[in-house]
Amino acid sequence: MPYTQDDLSNLFDFYSHQLLQNTVPFWFPRSIDEEFGGFLLMRDADGTLIDDDKAVWIQGRATWLLATLYNTVEQKQEWLDGARIGYEFLNNHCFDTDGQMFFHVTRDGKPIRKRRYFFSETFYVIAAAAYAKASGSEEAAEKARMVFGKCIEYATTPGLLQPKFLNTRPSKGIGVPMIMMNTAQQLRETIGDPRCDTWITTWIEQIETNFVKDDIRCVMEQVALDGSIIDHIDGRTLNPGHSIEGAWFILHEAIYRNNDKHLIDLGCRMLDYMWERGWDKTYGGLMYFKDVYNKPVQEYWQDMKFWWPHNEAIIATLLAFLITGDEKYAKWHKQVHDYAYQHFHDIIYGEWFGYLHRDGTVAQTAKGNLFKGPFHLPRQEWYCMQLLKDYAK
Amino acid sequence: MPYTQDDLSNLFDFYSHQLLQNTVPFWFPRSIDEEFGGFLLMRDADGTLIDDDKAVWIQGRATWLLATLYNTVEQKQEWLDGARIGYEFLNNHCFDTDGQMFFHVTRDGKPIRKRRYFFSETFYVIAAAAYAKASGSEEAAEKARMVFGKCIEYATTPGLLQPKFLNTRPSKGIGVPMIMMNTAQQLRETIGDPRCDTWITTWIEQIETNFVKDDIRCVMEQVALDGSIIDHIDGRTLNPGHSIEGAWFILHEAIYRNNDKHLIDLGCRMLDYMWERGWDKTYGGLMYFKDVYNKPVQEYWQDMKFWWPHNEAIIATLLAFLITGDEKYAKWHKQVHDYAYQHFHDIIYGEWFGYLHRDGTVAQTAKGNLFKGPFHLPRQEWYCMQLLKDYAK
Repeated sequence: MPYTQDDLSNLFDFYSHQLLQNTVPFWFPRSIDEEFGGFLLMRDADGTLIDDDKAVWIQGRATWLLATLYNTVEQKQEWLDGARIGYEFLNNHCFDTDGQMFFHVTRDGKPIRKRRYFFSETFYVIAAAAYAKASGSEEAAEKARMVFGKCIEYATTPGLLQPKFLNTRPSKGIGVPMIMMNTAQQLRETIGDPRCDTWITTWIEQIETNFVKDDIRCVMEQVALDGSIIDHIDGRTLNPGHSIEGAWFILHEAIYRNNDKHLIDLGCRMLDYMWERGWDKTYGGLMYFKDVYNKPVQEYWQDMKFWWPHNEAIIATLLAFLITGDEKYAKWHKQVHDYAYQHFHDIIYGEWFGYLHRDGTVAQTAKGNLFKGPFHLPRQEWYCMQLLKDYAK
Repeated sequence: MPYTQDDLSNLFDFYSHQLLQNTVPFWFPRSIDEEFGGFLLMRDADGTLIDDDKAVWIQGRATWLLATLYNTVEQKQEWLDGARIGYEFLNNHCFDTDGQMFFHVTRDGKPIRKRRYFFSETFYVIAAAAYAKASGSEEAAEKARMVFGKCIEYATTPGLLQPKFLNTRPSKGIGVPMIMMNTAQQLRETIGDPRCDTWITTWIEQIETNFVKDDIRCVMEQVALDGSIIDHIDGRTLNPGHSIEGAWFILHEAIYRNNDKHLIDLGCRMLDYMWERGWDKTYGGLMYFKDVYNKPVQEYWQDMKFWWPHNEAIIATLLAFLITGDEKYAKWHKQVHDYAYQHFHDIIYGEWFGYLHRDGTVAQTAKGNLFKGPFHLPRQEWYCMQLLKDYAK
């Protein structure tokens, strides 16, 4: 049964309430580090700090969130101030002398680890761009555009970043075109950049041509340079939540491009394929990894339920329903929404647990760590709230 | 209740039977790659090959196993031939031009990945040393000694290998002194090397001084350079199975050193501390990771049960019982032995599953992959069989 106007109105209320009364208050204002700048985000279930280190991805993402709330929900001074503190910490402490960013720094901004890819940079771009829009800072806008240019360079110049693997079996991952597409979308929607549309077209073409396999109804996580499937453990490993995230980036683009039919079809196919492969028919929820041929995957925790694939699936199914009106998507949305808020949401302290066993029991209580922080959940609640604005009472 | 002579005799029968009738036949002869050399070890539950790549650690370990069976159990030609095929593949395909070894190669020996530590090298040393003893090859003995020397150089020259972390918060792990100790023990017991005894003494001192914390009854997995606990997520993470493996390397050394009381006490303390911290009182089995202060660990799969900590605990508890006669260790041995053979052992196809959920259900069916192969389980069954030889009927 498709969602009625009333259902959508209730969903708007639910997501707005969760975002503003539950998720955001878990993190802020307590996580703002008045002493050293940036945010203290590695927290246990009850909010206790378990580590004062700073994960650069999450510093960027939290900055993006605060600036985005300011830009789109309400011009609260505390959100703008928080975004500035995050933006300045990123500038002052998270860049190496070679222009690359670190991955993990101490509370006072000393580098612990640098990695061989450039996702710290992509999250910096969305942070600086959203902050530039919020603050009107021309400097922030320039920095966002400059680092976006660097990301394009990293993405298109083989060997510019030190590779993790030797050159015997070259491969490429869906992560780069996907995250770059969303980075460009964010840049375009905040401060604008003439490069975005062309690049987004290119990245979507790359995803469609290389990673989407209609014959086997699958979106690959990595492929050989010619787009063929690499029949080894790593090459066969699928990440349904990641592909579903890519699906909604494409559906989002479809709307921007006046409900582009080709993109709607592409995004829905990606969602369909990976829902079928990822949804756990026994316990509910999305599996983390699957093998394309259902062989064992290397990652022994492959059947765990992580928070973020559920955030991405909630967005993707809602978007797909609103665009197509297909009741299948309403059904899936309700399924993943219900599963997620029943199993991940912490009714005592707010926010979500990050990691469940396959059977839905909590495996690890941290709300924030090196990889989890105020991003996927608040982004989902914020994005769905924006989508459903027209249904607000 | 301590084990009786009869119990020990039954255990000898059990381990010998499992090793020779169940575990070894799962892998050999089918895994020997007659075409390209080395072993094809990445296999699903029923033995089906899931990947023909070769993990260098496991190529070394399988070579060690076959040569060791030849040296200590029976001089079967097929074991010697298998060891030679493994040894030659390691020499021909697993060394980079700078003398470091690869981590992962293709079936025909082309390099896929090289890592920033030297455990491929330590497993090469035990493989070449055992093969040298089995074959009488002076060349293999020289190579084993030469690579052992390189390992000492890597272990003692900071910066010689590219570090994974920047220098803000220098740390050291228990893995290096532990694995080097066992490497030296293997070298000493096969072809002998005058460097071994002194180095083993040094490594044990390092473990005792830096990693064993009697005040909190704990063995740390990593510490600061001065041995202090690093109160951040990584620094707090304990690996009970790993420490228990270290405990039995030390108990093994205690026997070699005429039942050295200090070493017996040290090994038993390590076992005691980490049994208390690692044993799962709810479901049985050993947890993979624990936080020293019981905070959440980064690794969301921390409560899974892996095969190898159970192999190490079976050895450690049996050794501790045979050395001390303390019935506590017989009780623990029975507990971990029963849990492991009930939950990990595949009664249909033989060998063990590698990865269980916390509740003991199988999470992933592979018998072999990048990290699992014919090593921890056959080594446990072989080591216990050797230990219990005197009780054979």
